[in-house]
Amino acid sequence: MSILFQNVTALLMDPAHTVLSNAYVAVEEGRIASVGTEKPTGRFDRTIDGRGGILMPGLVNCHAHTAMTAMRGYGDGHDLHTWLNEYIFPVEGRWDDRSIRACTDLGLMEMIASGVTCLADMYMRMNTVGQAMADAGISANLCNGAIFFGEDFSPAACDDCRKQEELFSAWHGYDDGRLRVDAALHAEYTSTPALWEWIADFAKSRGLGMHVHISETRKEHGECKARWGKTPIQALAERGVFDVRAIAAHCVHTEPEDWAIMARKGVSAVHNPASNLKLGSGVAPVGQLIKARVNVALGTDGVSSNNSTDLFEDMKLALLLQNGVHEDPLALTAWDGLEMGTVNGAKALGRESGAIAPGLWADLILLDPDAPNLIPCHDAANNIAYAAHGSNVVLNMCRGRVIYEQGEFLTIDREKTLREVREYAVPLLFGK
Amino acid sequence: MSILFQNVTALLMDPAHTVLSNAYVAVEEGRIASVGTEKPTGRFDRTIDGRGGILMPGLVNCHAHTAMTAMRGYGDGHDLHTWLNEYIFPVEGRWDDRSIRACTDLGLMEMIASGVTCLADMYMRMNTVGQAMADAGISANLCNGAIFFGEDFSPAACDDCRKQEELFSAWHGYDDGRLRVDAALHAEYTSTPALWEWIADFAKSRGLGMHVHISETRKEHGECKARWGKTPIQALAERGVFDVRAIAAHCVHTEPEDWAIMARKGVSAVHNPASNLKLGSGVAPVGQLIKARVNVALGTDGVSSNNSTDLFEDMKLALLLQNGVHEDPLALTAWDGLEMGTVNGAKALGRESGAIAPGLWADLILLDPDAPNLIPCHDAANNIAYAAHGSNVVLNMCRGRVIYEQGEFLTIDREKTLREVREYAVPLLFGK
Repeated sequence: MSILFQNVTALLMDPAHTVLSNAYVAVEEGRIASVGTEKPTGRFDRTIDGRGGILMPGLVNCHAHTAMTAMRGYGDGHDLHTWLNEYIFPVEGRWDDRSIRACTDLGLMEMIASGVTCLADMYMRMNTVGQAMADAGISANLCNGAIFFGEDFSPAACDDCRKQEELFSAWHGYDDGRLRVDAALHAEYTSTPALWEWIADFAKSRGLGMHVHISETRKEHGECKARWGKTPIQALAERGVFDVRAIAAHCVHTEPEDWAIMARKGVSAVHNPASNLKLGSGVAPVGQLIKARVNVALGTDGVSSNNSTDLFEDMKLALLLQNGVHEDPLALTAWDGLEMGTVNGAKALGRESGAIAPGLWADLILLDPDAPNLIPCHDAANNIAYAAHGSNVVLNMCRGRVIYEQGEFLTIDREKTLREVREYAVPLLFGK
Repeated sequence: MSILFQNVTALLMDPAHTVLSNAYVAVEEGRIASVGTEKPTGRFDRTIDGRGGILMPGLVNCHAHTAMTAMRGYGDGHDLHTWLNEYIFPVEGRWDDRSIRACTDLGLMEMIASGVTCLADMYMRMNTVGQAMADAGISANLCNGAIFFGEDFSPAACDDCRKQEELFSAWHGYDDGRLRVDAALHAEYTSTPALWEWIADFAKSRGLGMHVHISETRKEHGECKARWGKTPIQALAERGVFDVRAIAAHCVHTEPEDWAIMARKGVSAVHNPASNLKLGSGVAPVGQLIKARVNVALGTDGVSSNNSTDLFEDMKLALLLQNGVHEDPLALTAWDGLEMGTVNGAKALGRESGAIAPGLWADLILLDPDAPNLIPCHDAANNIAYAAHGSNVVLNMCRGRVIYEQGEFLTIDREKTLREVREYAVPLLFGK
């Protein structure tokens, strides 16, 4: 299938911040074949007229717990401890494969409709989640965050080690690498050095990336320092956890020494501004991370702490927050936000996408040229970073395949999913 | 015209935080006639089946500069001084009535589509803006923020005093009070005590409310204290500016003594979180204002400093920000956000609306029951405050008249407005 986009305003997301008006972008065999202002020769199976609308790389959601859609807003208004122990954990004990599939599909619908083409998902029953991602046509890095307490670690004693092996066998490399599996630690405070070493070896021996929660709360960060005399980044780095491509979710309370390690080892920070604010975790030092040359990407986190997955919202919030909290209107620019949401995310997940250039995978989104909130357009980057909403996305293409167009989901059965969530998953999980 | 909403989840926004499932809300002669779970008797001209969706009071945007849509994102990425003097002011010198009408209509489309039923607009060429509000069917408090420098104040020497008189004559009380005019000072730093006294008398003698920018930036607040030995709230209060119903936009740097005055005099604070963050002004003390019993409402400010007018976004942001900056996940609740966006806003603007109760004006919005981002719904208030987007609004009713439904604007000519903005206003204002 070959597709030609014409009459689009193309945000290439190259280092020069090129924006091409009246551009053509050709897609062949799932990849971008050409980009320019002259119509390419050759025949295309389909031509899509953007009518001047913005065509840009799809957004990359680098930290999600997709199936948590089931728990959207559930138990809100309680302190963290009560919320987790009395609300979230009991529900999570009731998942079955059918319910997690329905709730993953629901979350994917929300992400796809708001322009996400690639995500990193850390949750449970990941074999089933992988099937949902495979069917939805989206790109995904899947992982199962390992947890292990106690002194007597062995891979055989650790259920999560077995699950990571299984997940690797089931999905890593699926569909020419559209699905990948990352090794994963839930966090420093839910595991032990023996597990860190096993995970580090597992990742290295299989050629996998790493996904871990880091310094989300002041308490977690401080307790790690009390326990080991060093920060979570430092403690895990020492055991080899960051010797592979790695993403560190949150990083709210990381310190200058952490940033130096992250920059040196190529650990990407995943900023989840809505979740960090909602849970009262604080404001991540995004401006300082960028200055320290750390690759900063964006995530929505689960909808139980956001409570939506519109990454346009998180992109805007990331920028607003640094400007406002530091009382500096130039703290970050629109381009910083766009880079966090696209190229930096693709880099964090080890993807050949996140920009518009020949040879990259065609993960692209097209925006409505006539949406009142995008008119006029003095500066395309600025409009995307500060004025756009997920609802402005009229087309979502993943690897050259249109998976969403004009409100219709082409890979997910919308009615069936809503019915499954309402009639099966919610009664099962919540007894109502 | 009588309309019956049936099969809706009604957020009444009463002090008891009542949410009625399977509710009926009857509208007659522009006002709410009945609310309940039993079908009312009588015949209705139209019945609207909400299919379980949320029906709630329309959002009230208490601080807008609507026509600034023209300058969405224009000159972004410069410091405030450069941005205002080299970008915004020169453009504002080029407005004519035709362009301001088109850009006001564009802004109203964005607000109406995202659930605003009532707004306070402070800008220029307000007679024309008033005509746009009249035609759009929306409720609005109009004002012309007076500016006067120099020692030799007299009403005759102050162009803005004349404009306020004219605006009062032209629009105050129009359509049974749907349009109101407020007296207005641009700000303490752009005027003198003689003008403050004139404005205070003008408001009192005409029975008007008051609209003024207060303590938006640290600089402004500090310079006022240096100039007068007191804060803007204190300086203006002394001259009678707050002896009428008043709205104070921003209040970012207000102090405990200010909050006491505001609570005592009934001055509403209008929180504009996106704008305050974007311009680097800071984070308003919303939690403390509420604790001090100040009525806190919400505004988008102009899109040149936001850059959108989706008040759902500002409602969520207001909540996230207090939780995050104070590292307290219970700093504000979902209901605090909903109250700021509805009842508190209506109170700030002196309106008999903002809640669903018999006798109030029928300013109502209906949300899509099948939007993936609102499913499931464990708690309607929580879903609205944290998960909803303006794009979930499927119907906007102002005073019993449906002005927007399923993507269609019923009072504004969408195509004509887009054409006018693109072909007339943008070339006139920006020479392109």
